[in-house]
Amino acid sequence: MIPPMNRRFLLVRRPLGIPVPDDFALVETAMPVLPPGGLIVRNHYASLDPAQRGWMDDAPSYMPPIPLGDAVRAATLGVVHASDNPAFAPGDWVRGAHALEDYSAVPAGSFTRSIDIDAVDRPTLYLSALGGNAMTAYFGLLDIAKPQPGETLLVTGAAGGVGSIVGQIAKIVGCRTIGIAGGAEKCDRLLRDFGFDAAIDYKGKAVAELAEEIRKVAPRGLDMLFENVGGTVMDAALLNLAQGARVVLCGLISEYNAPERIGIRNLWQVLVQRATIHGMIVADYIPRFAEATDDIRRWLAEGKLHVEEDVQDGLETAYPAFMRLFSGANRGKQILRIA
Amino acid sequence: MIPPMNRRFLLVRRPLGIPVPDDFALVETAMPVLPPGGLIVRNHYASLDPAQRGWMDDAPSYMPPIPLGDAVRAATLGVVHASDNPAFAPGDWVRGAHALEDYSAVPAGSFTRSIDIDAVDRPTLYLSALGGNAMTAYFGLLDIAKPQPGETLLVTGAAGGVGSIVGQIAKIVGCRTIGIAGGAEKCDRLLRDFGFDAAIDYKGKAVAELAEEIRKVAPRGLDMLFENVGGTVMDAALLNLAQGARVVLCGLISEYNAPERIGIRNLWQVLVQRATIHGMIVADYIPRFAEATDDIRRWLAEGKLHVEEDVQDGLETAYPAFMRLFSGANRGKQILRIA
Repeated sequence: MIPPMNRRFLLVRRPLGIPVPDDFALVETAMPVLPPGGLIVRNHYASLDPAQRGWMDDAPSYMPPIPLGDAVRAATLGVVHASDNPAFAPGDWVRGAHALEDYSAVPAGSFTRSIDIDAVDRPTLYLSALGGNAMTAYFGLLDIAKPQPGETLLVTGAAGGVGSIVGQIAKIVGCRTIGIAGGAEKCDRLLRDFGFDAAIDYKGKAVAELAEEIRKVAPRGLDMLFENVGGTVMDAALLNLAQGARVVLCGLISEYNAPERIGIRNLWQVLVQRATIHGMIVADYIPRFAEATDDIRRWLAEGKLHVEEDVQDGLETAYPAFMRLFSGANRGKQILRIA
Repeated sequence: MIPPMNRRFLLVRRPLGIPVPDDFALVETAMPVLPPGGLIVRNHYASLDPAQRGWMDDAPSYMPPIPLGDAVRAATLGVVHASDNPAFAPGDWVRGAHALEDYSAVPAGSFTRSIDIDAVDRPTLYLSALGGNAMTAYFGLLDIAKPQPGETLLVTGAAGGVGSIVGQIAKIVGCRTIGIAGGAEKCDRLLRDFGFDAAIDYKGKAVAELAEEIRKVAPRGLDMLFENVGGTVMDAALLNLAQGARVVLCGLISEYNAPERIGIRNLWQVLVQRATIHGMIVADYIPRFAEATDDIRRWLAEGKLHVEEDVQDGLETAYPAFMRLFSGANRGKQILRIA
């Protein structure tokens, strides 16, 4: 029997601005060696997230950069192929911070955890409705923004994997929701599929125009801003903060590929409105993921939560699939099927 | 007897960027009429503060803009000249949000309060150690940043009316303090007069260089940032935040005279460090000023708090005295003696 080979999607050069195909290489290598006390996982699905772009830079961040020549780090779902850990048996489904590759060597002590594949319609729910993006939405909104019934929330990047869930949870807890997204089709989906009360298309609009559109639908200001985008979109939102507004700073996708940090111009509004900005990293909430999972399963069962997945097929499409996040082409949670 | 006239320092044009003399006019008018239930106050000392620059703009803020043709709003100390309010008698010393003028008409229901002039060495302490700047320092640090012993605090604008008090209170509660100010003389004063553990001169330095100087004196990062300046100084500080850092956003003096808002570029660091930025307006703490006053009086008596005043003389010097705040010429709390 010929031993299986391992296809790996490597980071071979740190992107300058927008990642280009030559920053990566799909290679075929020998199977990894089983680490002592660890696992080899056969990856089936990978989560593609804007955060991965940050890990490609050699800059201080909340995680070490992806080493050059190593496979691109990603949350994946897979099946245990070999185990030196008595808590896992070959054939078990697991989720963890693995990589874009057929097989991942998982050292002892990693975050990899078993998942109950029989409890869901399809495995990919563990990367969408029950994935890191959903955990981000849940804790960012409920734990940081602390929404009160009747309050108004603006979500930027509202049609994305995090934003679309934030908006729906906010409706469940009784808030009014405004979503900003790029293009008429996405705005239609905000209203139709994700239950937003108002949708605003940011494309082609400067800060003042966008701020005015927000003002029209939130004349008393924004009690909460769930920020996934940054740049002009965030600056327009800041001009509409209500007094005491809470801003959850979850992502800044507009600047991940920019040659220099963009930041914000309207910080002054944070001062005059006595607002707070809270930086958030979902990994801090790992010990509490079970809380969120229980609530989200119930909402899914009750039909209160609609989650879309955009599954692209095959490791060989990793680059174009990843870039869909930045062009805005993705329709729902971006996932890559590996096998 | 000739009735006294009222000299008033009026805002006659909204400044574009840096205020120029023609934005103001010193005029002599008739005495104001005593408002029903109100007071006429003979102003003796006025507080000059960067916040006044914001009130000169016709932009949404936490206070209405100063109306064109009206005297420039200012916190002043004065003596009741006439009263239609039984709580005040002529001759009483008061403090309130009045204006740069000899006599202010104070409507019923204003914030004007009696002060105990016999409890202090000199009246101006009510605009310096016991003034709004001290209240800002006290509540911004203790109520918002919540310093813990052993933590490291960076104060920008550290030699100013707020910053110099923030640094000293932080030392009183057991923190390590780093101050940023403009020029060697001010940096000497940070170390000598205000007890900072380290002082950094920001003048002529770009973000990267300034960030590196902060890193040298705070290699484990900043647990707290008390921000009075904004712009490149704040961006350099943001590059040094420790995980979970608290940023008190108290002022942005670097942009008050800028033609456009400057903002910050390194917002990304707030996200990756799970930091929080808290906008602050001291007026929100008026109901709690007595708490601060008690502590500050004790610290003054114990010799733990050193407060400097820079008293300029005469309403006719209002414009140059005000501009000292922006050139950095002021040495301590900027005060204008009116009479």
